[in-house]
Amino acid sequence: MEITSLTNAKVKQWVRYREKKYRDMDQSFLIEGEHLIEEAHRAGCIRYLILEQHLPNPYPQYDAYTVTSQILHKISSHVSAVKMIAVCRYKEPSVEKGLRILALDDVQDPGNMGTMIRTAVSFGYSALLLSQRCVDIYNEKVIRSTQGALFHLSCCRCCFEDMLPQLQQEGYHIYGTSLHDAVPLQQIQRKEKHVLLMGNEGSGVRRQLLDLCDERIFIEMDFFESLNVGVAAGICMYHFRHCE
Amino acid sequence: MEITSLTNAKVKQWVRYREKKYRDMDQSFLIEGEHLIEEAHRAGCIRYLILEQHLPNPYPQYDAYTVTSQILHKISSHVSAVKMIAVCRYKEPSVEKGLRILALDDVQDPGNMGTMIRTAVSFGYSALLLSQRCVDIYNEKVIRSTQGALFHLSCCRCCFEDMLPQLQQEGYHIYGTSLHDAVPLQQIQRKEKHVLLMGNEGSGVRRQLLDLCDERIFIEMDFFESLNVGVAAGICMYHFRHCE
Repeated sequence: MEITSLTNAKVKQWVRYREKKYRDMDQSFLIEGEHLIEEAHRAGCIRYLILEQHLPNPYPQYDAYTVTSQILHKISSHVSAVKMIAVCRYKEPSVEKGLRILALDDVQDPGNMGTMIRTAVSFGYSALLLSQRCVDIYNEKVIRSTQGALFHLSCCRCCFEDMLPQLQQEGYHIYGTSLHDAVPLQQIQRKEKHVLLMGNEGSGVRRQLLDLCDERIFIEMDFFESLNVGVAAGICMYHFRHCE
Repeated sequence: MEITSLTNAKVKQWVRYREKKYRDMDQSFLIEGEHLIEEAHRAGCIRYLILEQHLPNPYPQYDAYTVTSQILHKISSHVSAVKMIAVCRYKEPSVEKGLRILALDDVQDPGNMGTMIRTAVSFGYSALLLSQRCVDIYNEKVIRSTQGALFHLSCCRCCFEDMLPQLQQEGYHIYGTSLHDAVPLQQIQRKEKHVLLMGNEGSGVRRQLLDLCDERIFIEMDFFESLNVGVAAGICMYHFRHCE
């Protein structure tokens, strides 16, 4: 189907997907860039494509709207010109009970969340738990920072006060990061089946959740006592990769 | 001195500091936020302050321009209202020859660079080397991501083809990160006196520089083979922190 008018209702709908409430309404989000679209395709998440006029559809198994470059520019969140956008469906909320689970408590920055998702997939984590006040996982900056990793792990927004004890019952060891009352990472026993709990950029993991943890970790530093949460998560996940 | 006109020449000059060429011209850059300003003060980098009218100057040792909130809003890169901005002088280019040096080859993303500077200071690195095509260290996003760490290490933009062999002569072991022809990080001998060389987000460390390295490192991964450069740098720096 071809669309050439910037004021077409479909165009308006796609632009609205920048806002969470409209994404939620249709359970849909946009992705751009060849690499991300290929990852979404392999994960079976694509609903349909939006393609620049006269271009062949590289994924003929999906329906495609053909539109003008002006329309693509209006929908796109990129500065540079984009030739294809995919409209994807939300992942089913689920927790794949692999050995390693990453839990994020009220992480606010989309770049940090995206980076942690990318790291988690690289280090064999199977599931991501998000507390209620985390940034939306379908935020365009989150998706871009994941570099497509989002499509490779299960994901669930839940109440941590309920979920963490339940996972403990199932044999998961819960590690929480904390600057106080915590054990240096080098001395932490690596339990293969675990949940790693990382906290908000400013305030860290909430106190009531730290109290639920089996162990609290801090990363040894020489100076300044300050690490970006995405970096801290990477250091911890790499540490747990080498479980004995 | 008080300024109330949005078209005042000083106001125009401050707005121009968003661009590198005007920063370079005056060897000056802007910082915002109490924490960053305190760090700049402790590092002796402040030239003068720009303060909202009727507010007491918290650093009376520095001259202050008092301005309207509209002017502050115009100069500020923040969305929320700012009450004080500091105009700082560039750091003298230098290489403090401590034990650990971080070298960044053509890193483009300001957030990544800022995060790596913050991590480097936390893990006791004394100097930062930047290749010619790295993003400007005085870019406002770089400074914000450093969380003030920028003021705690020496910094120099230089030609790596000349600098790395010179540092080798002085006894530094050069580690470069690479996905190919490289040794797993866990098997890397930790030499206390070293340079850690990290590369561009898309293309990594340039081939001709990898050829100069004493050892090439890769970070073991389970899947996806993709880490953000700031996370990868954090994992390596944490590893080298525990030299034996």
